[in-house]
Amino acid sequence: MSAAVSTGVVTLLTDFGVTDPFVGIMKGVLLREAPTLSLVDLTHGIPAHDVEAAAFTIAHSFRWFAPGTVHLCVVDPGVGSARAAVALRIQGHTFVGPDNGLFSALLELGPHAPARRIEPSRLGLKLGSRTFHGRDLFAPVAAWLAADRRKFEELGPEHELERRPLRKPSRSAAEARGSVVFTDHFGNLITDLPGSWLSAGASQVEIGEHTLRVVGTYSEAEPGECVALVSSFDTLEIAQREGSAARALGFGRGQVVRATAARAP
Amino acid sequence: MSAAVSTGVVTLLTDFGVTDPFVGIMKGVLLREAPTLSLVDLTHGIPAHDVEAAAFTIAHSFRWFAPGTVHLCVVDPGVGSARAAVALRIQGHTFVGPDNGLFSALLELGPHAPARRIEPSRLGLKLGSRTFHGRDLFAPVAAWLAADRRKFEELGPEHELERRPLRKPSRSAAEARGSVVFTDHFGNLITDLPGSWLSAGASQVEIGEHTLRVVGTYSEAEPGECVALVSSFDTLEIAQREGSAARALGFGRGQVVRATAARAP
Amino acid sequence: MSAAVSTGVVTLLTDFGVTDPFVGIMKGVLLREAPTLSLVDLTHGIPAHDVEAAAFTIAHSFRWFAPGTVHLCVVDPGVGSARAAVALRIQGHTFVGPDNGLFSALLELGPHAPARRIEPSRLGLKLGSRTFHGRDLFAPVAAWLAADRRKFEELGPEHELERRPLRKPSRSAAEARGSVVFTDHFGNLITDLPGSWLSAGASQVEIGEHTLRVVGTYSEAEPGECVALVSSFDTLEIAQREGSAARALGFGRGQVVRATAARAP
Repeated sequence: MSAAVSTGVVTLLTDFGVTDPFVGIMKGVLLREAPTLSLVDLTHGIPAHDVEAAAFTIAHSFRWFAPGTVHLCVVDPGVGSARAAVALRIQGHTFVGPDNGLFSALLELGPHAPARRIEPSRLGLKLGSRTFHGRDLFAPVAAWLAADRRKFEELGPEHELERRPLRKPSRSAAEARGSVVFTDHFGNLITDLPGSWLSAGASQVEIGEHTLRVVGTYSEAEPGECVALVSSFDTLEIAQREGSAARALGFGRGQVVRATAARAP
Repeated sequence: MSAAVSTGVVTLLTDFGVTDPFVGIMKGVLLREAPTLSLVDLTHGIPAHDVEAAAFTIAHSFRWFAPGTVHLCVVDPGVGSARAAVALRIQGHTFVGPDNGLFSALLELGPHAPARRIEPSRLGLKLGSRTFHGRDLFAPVAAWLAADRRKFEELGPEHELERRPLRKPSRSAAEARGSVVFTDHFGNLITDLPGSWLSAGASQVEIGEHTLRVVGTYSEAEPGECVALVSSFDTLEIAQREGSAARALGFGRGQVVRATAARAP
Repeated sequence: MSAAVSTGVVTLLTDFGVTDPFVGIMKGVLLREAPTLSLVDLTHGIPAHDVEAAAFTIAHSFRWFAPGTVHLCVVDPGVGSARAAVALRIQGHTFVGPDNGLFSALLELGPHAPARRIEPSRLGLKLGSRTFHGRDLFAPVAAWLAADRRKFEELGPEHELERRPLRKPSRSAAEARGSVVFTDHFGNLITDLPGSWLSAGASQVEIGEHTLRVVGTYSEAEPGECVALVSSFDTLEIAQREGSAARALGFGRGQVVRATAARAP
C-alpha cells in the first residue's frame, strides 16, 4: 500500500470547463510551488457539480498513469462548507480533493492505507477565498506531494472518507443489468456493466425497447446500426457506427441496460 | 521593478478557442525556439476580439503564477494593421502582445518600467503572415524572454502603451456600484466591484429588480437562491446555489450591480 | 530523409474533443512510457471521423514544430478493423497513426523514406481494447520513438500508405479554383487554394453569388465587409471584419471559391 516514488506528474480533473482561467490559475499555483512538475489535464468536462460522473471517471482513468502520480480532483459544490479536504493513496497513486464522495468508486478497488484529512493551518496554508479551494488548498498540497516536499502522513489526521451510494450493476442467472454513466464526445453510451460479464456468454443487449447485437469492434456494425461492445473502460458501451447512439436512441445518463443470452424467437 | 529570474514558464491567453490548431501551432514555435519551456494555457476562451474581457482576466490571473513568468496574450483584432507589438514588465512578470489596450487593467496596478515596442527587423524576425502575429512574432519573443535568450531592453525602443478607458466601479457614502465583467462556466456573474468594498458593511446587493443577500460561501444559500459573495478574483460575484445565476436572473456582461447597506423595510 | 534527433516533443491530434478523459488517458500512457516528454495538444477539435479535415490540418501544421518532433494522430473510425497502424517520416518529423488516408496530404510534400506498418506483437504490445488504439498502440509507440527507445525501422515492415483522393485546387489561365476546407473559431472560411496563386494577380474572389475584394490583412476591410486574403496556412481565406464570414455568407466546408482577375464592369 505504500506509495511509489513520485513521478512528478500531476493530473487535473474538474468540472470547470475550459473557457475560464480557473484551470490555468491552478496550474500557476502548482508550478509556483514546484516548477518542474508535469501537468496533465485528465478532463475539465465533468458536468457541473456531478460528483457521481467524476467518481466513475477517476476510478476508470487513473490506472493508465504510472504509479507515483498525484491526481488533483476538484468537483466541489460544497466548497467553503464544513466538508473536509482529503488525500487518499491507493495502488501507488495519490488523490487530493474534497470529501464529498468523489473517491467512492476508488474505495471499491480494495484495501488502502487510511485517508488523511488535510489541515490547512497545520500546513501553513492561508485560504485566500471561500469559493476556490482548488487554487488555495488542493493545488499547493498536490504540488508538495508530487515534489516530495511534504509527506502524506503530515497532511493531517486519519480520516474516514464519505462513501456515496453508487448505482451498481447487478447480475442474475438470466441477465446482467447496469446503467449509462456518461455519453462520450462521439455519442457512445458508456455504462457501468463490466465488460467481462458481457464476454461471458451474453449475446444481446437491451436498452429501452431496443435489442442490440454484441460485436467486437465498431467496424463490425452495419452503417447506421447501433450495437453493444466492450468500451475502452472495460465496460459495456452502446455505439452507432460512425454516428451518435445517444442521438439515434434518445437515451443518456441513468438509462438501464440489460445483457442477456439470446432468446429463442 | 526589475524582473525576477525567468521561471521558464510561458502562459498563453487568446480568443482562439480550442477547436482549431492555432494554439498548438504557437506552442510549436515556442518549443522550437526554447525546448525546455513549460507551457500553460491560461485560457483560450476569451470571447472573439474582446479586448476588455481579456484585460480583466490578465490583470486578475497573473499573480497566481510565480514572478519570472512570461505571459503571451493574443487578442488581436487589429493584427496586420499599424498597432504596435509590445512587451511590458510589472511586478516581476513579463507580458507580450499587441498594443490595443489589452494591458490597460495591468497599468492600474502601479508603477512599472517603460514598456517596449517590439521591432521585428531588429530581432531578425521575418513575419510569415499578416494575420497571425501570435505565431510569427509574439511566440518567438515570449520564448526568447522566457529562456533568457533576449533581454527585455533589446526588444525595441521605449513605448507609451495604449490605455483603453475601462469601465470602473464607483463608490459613494450610500452605495458601491460596479458591473458584470464576465459569466463563468457555472453561470456565476463575476463583477469588477472589489470584494473589500462588499466586506466593509454592505449587507445587500441589487441587480436589476432583484435584491440579494450577501453570504460568505455558496453553501450558505438556500437551494435555488441567488446570492452575492466575494469571488475568487476578490470581486463581487452573483451566484445561484448549484445553478446558473446568469440563466436564473437573465443578466450578463455589462449589467450594473449596486451594494448597499440594508434599508429599513 | 533521415530523422532529426528527437526533441522529446509529442503532439496530439484527435477527433476526441476535450470533454472526455480520453486525451488525458493517452497522455498518461505517453508519460508512463517516457516521463520526460513534452506533450502538446495540436487539436482535438477535428470533426468526428473526419479524416480529410485531419489530413489538411496535419499537413499545414507540423512544420511549425522543430524537426525531431513526433506527431500522434488519431482519427480512427476503423479502429479494430484490418486497417494497418503505421509510422511515417518526412522532413525530419515522425507521424504515428492509423493508415486510413490521414497522411495523404503529407505524401504530396515530396519524397520520404518508406513508411512502416507497426506490428504490436513484434513490439511486445498487448492491445487492451479493440476500440482505443490511441491509448493501447499509438501512444506507446509515439513515446518510444520520441524517447529514442525504439528505432523507426524496428516498428515493422515497410508499408505502402493508403492515399485518399483529396479534393485539390485547380488553375487555368482565367481563374484559380479551390474549396473551403474548414471554418475556424472566428468563422473565417479556410480554403485549400494556395496563397501564392492569389498573390499572383488575382484581384477578386467569388464564392457563391458573392464577389469579394482581395486585401492584405483584416483591418483593410470595412466594418462588416467580407474579404479574401492569404490565411496563416498560406491559403486563401474568406473573412468578415470582426465578424463571422461563415455566418454572414452562409457557407462552409466544401463550398467552391474562384479567384480571378477583376472583370471590366
